[in-house]
Amino acid sequence: MICWLNGAFCPVEQARIDPQDRGFLLGDGIFETMLAVDGVVRRAPRHLARLAGAAELLGFFAPFSDNEILAAIGRLLQENGLQQGRAVLRLTLTRGGGARGLAPPPHVTPALLLTAAATSPPPQSMRAIVSSFVRNEKSVTSRIKSLNYLDNIMARREAVQNGADEALMRNSTGNIAAASAANIFVVEDGVLSTPSVGDGALPGVMRSIVLAAAAELDIPAREGPVAIEALTRSSEAFLSNALIGVCPLVEIDGKVIGNGAAGPITRKLRIISKDRE
Amino acid sequence: MICWLNGAFCPVEQARIDPQDRGFLLGDGIFETMLAVDGVVRRAPRHLARLAGAAELLGFFAPFSDNEILAAIGRLLQENGLQQGRAVLRLTLTRGGGARGLAPPPHVTPALLLTAAATSPPPQSMRAIVSSFVRNEKSVTSRIKSLNYLDNIMARREAVQNGADEALMRNSTGNIAAASAANIFVVEDGVLSTPSVGDGALPGVMRSIVLAAAAELDIPAREGPVAIEALTRSSEAFLSNALIGVCPLVEIDGKVIGNGAAGPITRKLRIISKDRE
Repeated sequence: MICWLNGAFCPVEQARIDPQDRGFLLGDGIFETMLAVDGVVRRAPRHLARLAGAAELLGFFAPFSDNEILAAIGRLLQENGLQQGRAVLRLTLTRGGGARGLAPPPHVTPALLLTAAATSPPPQSMRAIVSSFVRNEKSVTSRIKSLNYLDNIMARREAVQNGADEALMRNSTGNIAAASAANIFVVEDGVLSTPSVGDGALPGVMRSIVLAAAAELDIPAREGPVAIEALTRSSEAFLSNALIGVCPLVEIDGKVIGNGAAGPITRKLRIISKDRE
Repeated sequence: MICWLNGAFCPVEQARIDPQDRGFLLGDGIFETMLAVDGVVRRAPRHLARLAGAAELLGFFAPFSDNEILAAIGRLLQENGLQQGRAVLRLTLTRGGGARGLAPPPHVTPALLLTAAATSPPPQSMRAIVSSFVRNEKSVTSRIKSLNYLDNIMARREAVQNGADEALMRNSTGNIAAASAANIFVVEDGVLSTPSVGDGALPGVMRSIVLAAAAELDIPAREGPVAIEALTRSSEAFLSNALIGVCPLVEIDGKVIGNGAAGPITRKLRIISKDRE
């Protein structure tokens, strides 16, 4: 596999992350996961805008322009023979190296890594557990896609140990915040609900697309607290992220949601969201 | 600077962290910061026990025994000419590489990095702000010394921007949890208080030593919620960690604590804690 690290293409086996990189030592960085289909990256401006916003919040900047990154993505897909079919791109941006200690150094040289790999089609449906690991909606790490993924890793590990595909994480108030690597939507009495960013939802790219699609289709939608009980009462539920798109969530903690298949609102939103940039 | 990476000594400029290391990509790892004085690492068994406990919680193990790590520390201090004076050691343990995605791979090869550097004497006193960045006491990352340090980095950055040395972080209930890189103790009406691990305190090595020293000196001590008001009412306050030991906290948000110098209980605990292993 060829990767792009700080402006140079090289085999990933030869790419060297600095042991003094703050991304490695302290999780001082962010990332984006993007889908490419037939050599074209989907929703690139949205992903790059989110990356830039997160970097600005943390107080640093990507060392390359969006156009340079897009050009690198195109060449990386070529170099890895990924011009056909589905590929997943991961863009990792860290604050770079620096002196020991927590305080960011005044002058930094951020590091940027881009990798690509083939990825299989999204699952037709998913089953989740409600995790014992929580998402801290008051943390800066819940509003950006940071390198601080340990709670999510532990939640996902719990899901796998329980034979499920995903883990729903509660926030500090006990309401649902998100899945370990996806946003969640539920339908109750015909109304689409999803946790707000204040409830601990990551401001997902696909999440925005789904909300816009719902508005367009005149499906009543709200962003706000989603209680555990709303899950069990829901007639439909689905997860969303860049790779799975809109994916029906058909079982939670062993209980079947709706009739155990994609519901009518989920199907509509899946179709319309699929082609949206 | 020479480091020890996965069993080999090499210049840090040549040491290569794998771009696919989960510590780098997801913060899937832990670390310890230790003090060495005149070539001898302080409280090593406590630090190594905490590291092992955290790794076990996360579901992996250090690829070297404690004895191998201790031997490497000794040689690393020699290789870097740090056999005299104060040196800081950092031991970073990650789950290692693996397939894309959050779920830990079933078979992992954890990565272990050890670095050493000279460090100056601890400050005589410190000034702190109360940060707007919170510590999530319900997160697995608040109970272990994980690589997920972004909230703490942002808190420390806020402190530096406000001309302070440290940032006190509140937990989700608004009480004080810890400083960005230290535990906190306050003295009110002769009673020593420190946030409990349930309140968001990291189970610090020096924190344990201080609590044991207080018991020995018959200083009444409690672990439990510490409200913001307790800070402003306190007659003494101090911070503790492996590098600063017991360090008087003489100012919070611009308000002087006690008489602005180390109080009598702080002084006693500083002296007795200094030599404890």
